[in-house]
Amino acid sequence: MGKMIDRQRFDEWYNEIVELADLCDKRYPIKGMNIWKPYGWKIMQNIDAIIREEMEKTGHNEVYFPLLIPESCFKKEEEHIKGFSEEVYWVTHAGGNELEERFLLRPTSETALYSIFSLWIRSHADLPLKTFQIVNTFRYETKMTKAFIRVREIHFFEAHTCHENFEDAERQIKEDLEIAERFFKKLCLPYVISRRPDWDKFAGAYYSIGIDVLMPSLKTLQVASIHQYKQNFSIPFEIKYEGRDGKHYYCHQTTYGMSERILGAIVGIHGDEKGIKLPSSIAPIKVVIIPIIFKGWEERIMEECRKIKEKIEELGLKCHIDDRDKTPGSKFYDWELKGVPLRVEIGPKDIENGVISIARRDGIKKKMPVNEIEKLKEELQEYDKMLYVEAEKFLKENTHIMKEIEGKEGIVELPWCGKEECGKKMEEELDMKSLGIPLPQKECNEKCAACKEKAASWLRLAKSY
Amino acid sequence: MGKMIDRQRFDEWYNEIVELADLCDKRYPIKGMNIWKPYGWKIMQNIDAIIREEMEKTGHNEVYFPLLIPESCFKKEEEHIKGFSEEVYWVTHAGGNELEERFLLRPTSETALYSIFSLWIRSHADLPLKTFQIVNTFRYETKMTKAFIRVREIHFFEAHTCHENFEDAERQIKEDLEIAERFFKKLCLPYVISRRPDWDKFAGAYYSIGIDVLMPSLKTLQVASIHQYKQNFSIPFEIKYEGRDGKHYYCHQTTYGMSERILGAIVGIHGDEKGIKLPSSIAPIKVVIIPIIFKGWEERIMEECRKIKEKIEELGLKCHIDDRDKTPGSKFYDWELKGVPLRVEIGPKDIENGVISIARRDGIKKKMPVNEIEKLKEELQEYDKMLYVEAEKFLKENTHIMKEIEGKEGIVELPWCGKEECGKKMEEELDMKSLGIPLPQKECNEKCAACKEKAASWLRLAKSY
Repeated sequence: MGKMIDRQRFDEWYNEIVELADLCDKRYPIKGMNIWKPYGWKIMQNIDAIIREEMEKTGHNEVYFPLLIPESCFKKEEEHIKGFSEEVYWVTHAGGNELEERFLLRPTSETALYSIFSLWIRSHADLPLKTFQIVNTFRYETKMTKAFIRVREIHFFEAHTCHENFEDAERQIKEDLEIAERFFKKLCLPYVISRRPDWDKFAGAYYSIGIDVLMPSLKTLQVASIHQYKQNFSIPFEIKYEGRDGKHYYCHQTTYGMSERILGAIVGIHGDEKGIKLPSSIAPIKVVIIPIIFKGWEERIMEECRKIKEKIEELGLKCHIDDRDKTPGSKFYDWELKGVPLRVEIGPKDIENGVISIARRDGIKKKMPVNEIEKLKEELQEYDKMLYVEAEKFLKENTHIMKEIEGKEGIVELPWCGKEECGKKMEEELDMKSLGIPLPQKECNEKCAACKEKAASWLRLAKSY
Repeated sequence: MGKMIDRQRFDEWYNEIVELADLCDKRYPIKGMNIWKPYGWKIMQNIDAIIREEMEKTGHNEVYFPLLIPESCFKKEEEHIKGFSEEVYWVTHAGGNELEERFLLRPTSETALYSIFSLWIRSHADLPLKTFQIVNTFRYETKMTKAFIRVREIHFFEAHTCHENFEDAERQIKEDLEIAERFFKKLCLPYVISRRPDWDKFAGAYYSIGIDVLMPSLKTLQVASIHQYKQNFSIPFEIKYEGRDGKHYYCHQTTYGMSERILGAIVGIHGDEKGIKLPSSIAPIKVVIIPIIFKGWEERIMEECRKIKEKIEELGLKCHIDDRDKTPGSKFYDWELKGVPLRVEIGPKDIENGVISIARRDGIKKKMPVNEIEKLKEELQEYDKMLYVEAEKFLKENTHIMKEIEGKEGIVELPWCGKEECGKKMEEELDMKSLGIPLPQKECNEKCAACKEKAASWLRLAKSY
C-alpha cells in the first residue's frame, strides 16, 4: 500500500492531483466554478448511481425542481434566510428588463420544494412523502475555493421527506444513517457521526447530524448531513395533512444531503504519491490491460489481450486495453495516477506460462492462471477492503479521547457539560471547531474539560475544511 | 389503436395530459419553470440513457461545464450575442454585493466551452474532439410557455465537436444524422430533416439543420438541431491546432442539440383520448399486472401475480403489480393514462386455463399461455412498430408536395428559386414558417412557386411551435 500523503504537503498535492488525474479543469474564468472532465464526471455519475440505488431501495422518488427560487419563497423561514443570505447569487435581469421579483440560484432546495409539498400533501395517506433530487446548487463562497471541497457551483444530492409526526421523522433519520453506512462502505470511507452543537446546526433545523471523514491533512471534511426540521418549515410553508382523526396537522420534515465532496474525500483519503486510488464500485475502468510487446510477438500479444479483455468483461468488469504507442512504464504511471484498481500485464512469458501478471493499485502483485480469471473479482474485493482498512487505521490513530484540553491534531473528544460557553472555550484553546456530540452517544462519567462540572456527554472537535 | 387527438382540441388536451399523466407539475411560482414529477423525470432519464449510449458508441465524451458564463466570454461571437441577448437571465449580485462582472445563465454552452477548448486543443493529434453534456439551460421566453415544448429552464443535451477541416466537420454532421435516425426510431418518432433557410439559422452558425416532427395540431415541433459552425466560433475563441505541416489552423466546429421537447413530441404524437403511449424503450414500467380478484381467490391470484412478475423481470422487463385497493377498471384507467405499454390481467379463469390476459396500450388484446411468456418481448416490439407506423402514416398524410402556393395544413413543400424574398412571400401567403430545404435534397424541375423562375430546390413550410 502506497503511503498516505504527508499532512504538510497534502493541500498542495490535492490541488495538483485533481487536475493531473483528469478529474477537473480549474481554468474556467469564474473562480470556484470548475469544469468536470470526462473521467471525473464519470466517477461522479457512478457515485450518483449508487445513491440512486439506495434511494430506490428505500422508497424515495426522484424529482427535479427548478433552479430559480423567487425571493418571496426564500424568505418564508426566517432562520433559513439569515443563514444563507450572504451566500446566494441573485438573478435580477432577463433580456433587457429588470425582473419584477428577484430570483436566487438555489443554495439548497427547501424553499423551492416546500411551497409545492403543501399542494401535494392532503391527507395522512400521502405520508410519508420521500423524495430526492440530484442537482446543481450555488453558494457564493468567500473563503478560498478548493476543487470538489469548496466550490461555488456544487453537484448536490438532497433527500426531503415529510412525516405524520416527530417519531416517524426520527425513524427516517435512522434509515438515513443506515443508508450512509452502506453507501460509505461501498466507497471505502470510514467516518464519524456527530450531532452538531446548537450554534452550528443547519439554518432552520431543529437539530443537525454531520458525517465527517478525516483527511490526510488531519482536518475533517463533512461529507453528509442529516437534518431534523420538526415543523420549522412546515408551519411557514403550510404543509398540513388531515390526520386519521379528521383534524389538520403540520408535517414533520427531514433532509439528507451529500455532494461532490465525496469525490474530494476519496481523492484525499485513498491518495498516495502515485495518484488516486478508486474504490472498485465507482472506477470507470476496473481493469486496465497493458500489452508488454516484444519484437515478433506483437500480434500474438494483442490477440491475447483482446481474449483476456473479453473474459474480464464477461465477469461484468469494465476493462480497457491501453494500446497507445508509449512505453509500458509510462502507461503504468498514467493509470496509477488515475487510480484504476487493477492492472493486468501480458507479455510473452505470461502467454507461455498461461498466466497474467496482476498489479493491484494498492501495490499487491501476483501471477494468476488464465483459467482462474474469475478470481479477479476477489482481488477487487480484497483491494477495496484494504482501502477501507488503511483509512480506518488512520482515522483511529488520529482520534484522541482525552480528559483535559491539550494540544492534539486530528479528532479530539473531550468531556462536556453541554454549555455553549464551555464548548466555545475548548474550540478556542484547541484552535478547532466542534463537530458535536459523538453518535451513537457514548456514556461519559467525566468532568467537563472546561468548567470541571459534571459532563453530560463527549464533545468532538477538529480542524475542518 | 386509439385515435390521435383531434387537432382542434390538441393544445388543450396536451396542457392537461402532462399533469394528469404525472409528468410534471405546473404550479411552481415561476411561469414556464415546471416541476418534473418522479414519473416524468424517470422517462426523461431513460431518454437521456439512450442518448448516452449513442454518444458512447460514437466516441463522444461527457463533460460538465459551469452554468454561469461571464458576460465577456459571451460577447466574443457577435452574431451569437445578437441572437440570444434578448432571452438571457443575468446574475448581477451575490450575497449583498454587486458583482464586478455580470454572469448569464447558459442559454446554450458554446461560449462556456470554447474558451476552454482553446486550452485543450494544441495539435492535430487532439482532433477530432467530441464532447457532450446534459444540463439545465435557461431562456427567458416571452411567448406563451408550454410544458416540455417552450419552457424557461430547459433540460438540454448538447454535443460539441472540433475538427481539422470542413470535410471532417461535415463527416461529423453525417454521423449526427445517423445518430438521430437510430435515436428517434427507438422513440417511435418519424421526422423530417431540413436545412434551415439562412434567415433562420442558429446565431453564429454557417448553416443549421433542423429535425422536426409533426404534432396532431398539424404544427411542427423542432426536436433536434445540428449546426455547422465552420470557423465562426474558433476564430474569436482562438481554438487553434498545429497541423501535420507544423502550421497553425483554426478548428472547424459542429454542434448537435436536443432537449426535453422530445418528451413533448412523444406525449403529443403517441397520445389518444385515454392518455399517453410510451415507447417501450423509455417506459419506466413496461408491464403492469392487475390482479382480478374474486372472493376466495385472493391469495391464489396474488401468488400467481408475483410468480408472473418474476418471470417477466427475468426477461429484463420492468414490471409492477398494482395491488391498490381499487377496482380493476380504475386501475386500467390510471395505467392507460400513464402510457404503460402492456397490461397483464390475471383472474381465476386465467389461472385455470394457464394463460394471462394481455392488453396492449395500442388496443390489441389477447390471451397468452404462461409457458410462452417470453413472447411478451415480441408484443412490445409489435407495439413499438405500431406506434411508429401510425405516426408515419399521419406525417405522410399531412405532407403536401405542391407546385402552387395554396392554403394547406400540415407540411407543405413548394418549388423555390432560393431567394429570401420568395421564401418570405410563401411564408406570408401560407401563414407558415420555412423549415428549409428538405434533406436529403430532392431534385426539383419545377418553377419557383413565388416568382415562377427556375426553382433550385424545394422549400418546406409549416406552422411551428
